[in-house]
Amino acid sequence: MKVDGKAYRTIWPDTDGEAVHILDQTLFPHRFETVQLRTVEDAARAISDMLVRGAPLIGATASYGMTLAMRADASDAALSAAYDRLHATRPTAINLRWALDRMEAVLRPVPQGDRCTAAWAEAARICDEDVAINSAIGDNGLAIIRDIAAKKGGGTVNILTHCNAGWLATVDWGTATAPVYKAHDAGIPVHVWVDETRPRNQGAFLTAWELGRHGVPHTVIVDNAGGHLMQHGQVDMVIVGTDRTTARGDVCNKIGTYLKALAAQDNGVPFYVALPTPTIDHRVSDGVAEIPIEDRSGDEVRFISGRSGDGVTSVDLLPPGSAAANPSFDVTPARLVTALITEKGVVPATAEAISALK
Amino acid sequence: MKVDGKAYRTIWPDTDGEAVHILDQTLFPHRFETVQLRTVEDAARAISDMLVRGAPLIGATASYGMTLAMRADASDAALSAAYDRLHATRPTAINLRWALDRMEAVLRPVPQGDRCTAAWAEAARICDEDVAINSAIGDNGLAIIRDIAAKKGGGTVNILTHCNAGWLATVDWGTATAPVYKAHDAGIPVHVWVDETRPRNQGAFLTAWELGRHGVPHTVIVDNAGGHLMQHGQVDMVIVGTDRTTARGDVCNKIGTYLKALAAQDNGVPFYVALPTPTIDHRVSDGVAEIPIEDRSGDEVRFISGRSGDGVTSVDLLPPGSAAANPSFDVTPARLVTALITEKGVVPATAEAISALK
Repeated sequence: MKVDGKAYRTIWPDTDGEAVHILDQTLFPHRFETVQLRTVEDAARAISDMLVRGAPLIGATASYGMTLAMRADASDAALSAAYDRLHATRPTAINLRWALDRMEAVLRPVPQGDRCTAAWAEAARICDEDVAINSAIGDNGLAIIRDIAAKKGGGTVNILTHCNAGWLATVDWGTATAPVYKAHDAGIPVHVWVDETRPRNQGAFLTAWELGRHGVPHTVIVDNAGGHLMQHGQVDMVIVGTDRTTARGDVCNKIGTYLKALAAQDNGVPFYVALPTPTIDHRVSDGVAEIPIEDRSGDEVRFISGRSGDGVTSVDLLPPGSAAANPSFDVTPARLVTALITEKGVVPATAEAISALK
Repeated sequence: MKVDGKAYRTIWPDTDGEAVHILDQTLFPHRFETVQLRTVEDAARAISDMLVRGAPLIGATASYGMTLAMRADASDAALSAAYDRLHATRPTAINLRWALDRMEAVLRPVPQGDRCTAAWAEAARICDEDVAINSAIGDNGLAIIRDIAAKKGGGTVNILTHCNAGWLATVDWGTATAPVYKAHDAGIPVHVWVDETRPRNQGAFLTAWELGRHGVPHTVIVDNAGGHLMQHGQVDMVIVGTDRTTARGDVCNKIGTYLKALAAQDNGVPFYVALPTPTIDHRVSDGVAEIPIEDRSGDEVRFISGRSGDGVTSVDLLPPGSAAANPSFDVTPARLVTALITEKGVVPATAEAISALK
């Protein structure tokens, strides 16, 4: 998407074929800097230090990490070492493993002299496929927004989103944001209510940043505010992303998503989940009972960083002696989900419809 | 309640009859300091600068402000001037007006030579009445907690609360916290999930502080987390306070309360609202439609203060150019409220039951 008028992806190869560029997302929203990755070690550190985040972007970065490894040494041993080094960065990230397996399967049979060229091509394909999937999600969601806009007689469509399922988490477009960007670019008046999304504030830090840079009208709200806005007709639809969707349509996403889904149902506001079909976990059915929820450090609740003077400062928000708990995700039962917006179409959150996406 | 073993109220007269002491709540949770008020101007500034906050405590401070005025000059003109000065501090605070009207009604007929003594006595009565009301709320709520504890076979009762309806907002006990303190002091094992309560973080800054200082086990969570905890049986009851309750039992309280009520209903968790019956507004019925909600400054969303090094620093949490909206309260419909805990008893949130409290 655009940053102040200039089109960007979150990762792109240098024209000289010697490096890859990323955005340093740890600096958002306070600074905008691109970083050059020249070695597999650079790529590994970009993933482990979270300069890149979001499952699709982690996979894309890992695929370019394999490419940079092949550039330096295209031997079988180097291929295995690069796989292991990159896999160790965030071992629980399923998309990371998937991208590494795909790169290895392509590269292993190729003669060493051709591996570097093959790697550049395959990494580019992985990125282009991600862009195509998200663009298709955007087109399918655009139709929904267009319908709402028509019902409102051309009035602004108010869309609430939670966390960051934006282009910064993918190679381009994002998942939940793709329909928003498509609508905005098509001239449909949209306005996004951006949940701050405590504790890591990805809504305020990332979603508001990317919408603002692309020029999409938006307003940041605290996570507490969405219910009130829905009670007063100020939200036309909710679109969120998901980390994992079950076979019956339960949706695991950033903590707090469930509360917005409850409020949407209570006020007759449609609640959509945007996702690439590969993130559906067909082995799991009852999300609340079966999906283990990561308890992250309470320090993410206690400390927050923001701009202060010329720099960025971390401050402590809790009384000394008070502990914090930090469950990081919750599960929204399928009964609260109006529909799933996928690259293959918009489908109800039911076992039958989801099975047909296989 | 206690602060590290020593009993406090939020406001108390000096033993020499020349001043009043308060806690400087603007410093919480980072510092604990008491402040001496010696003049009506001191009292007015304590209210307008929010060293004291919470309707009951504002009323109590105003009544002592009138007393300090009478100490300096007990004339009719001074009485009127003190009323006007104190009323101008926060003109929309109903409890402030109520306390000033009551003080004036008591003092005006009294000979000037007796006004100072009468004022000390009346201000003390206002405080003692507030303490008695909250203590009665505590006793009535204690019975509910005792029942839940019995059903759990003596296991810890997990109580979720939002914002600060604690002793810091009143003279002592608080409203939502009164049952908690009573249960804790009675030896019933309780643990409180404290919603951080964005944007002003009164849960983290005030409720966690006061529970911690009194020794009540508690854990701070982000406002997003409560629904997930309820889905997993980790919340036995919710108790919140209220700024205004309607004739049919709709409850206006800090933004986000409604979302917790929805989650409580969806998971069969009882949702209680603790309130003094004078805060019921019998002229209003449909809270969502009739109660105007204050839109406060977006700067409360953008900036937050926390400890950094030896000091307290304010940091900016939003991207430059992104605006924030800040609706400050929401309305929880009566259908989501299990019962109201009042000083007169525990009653259902229905027009009939509420009318009987008049």
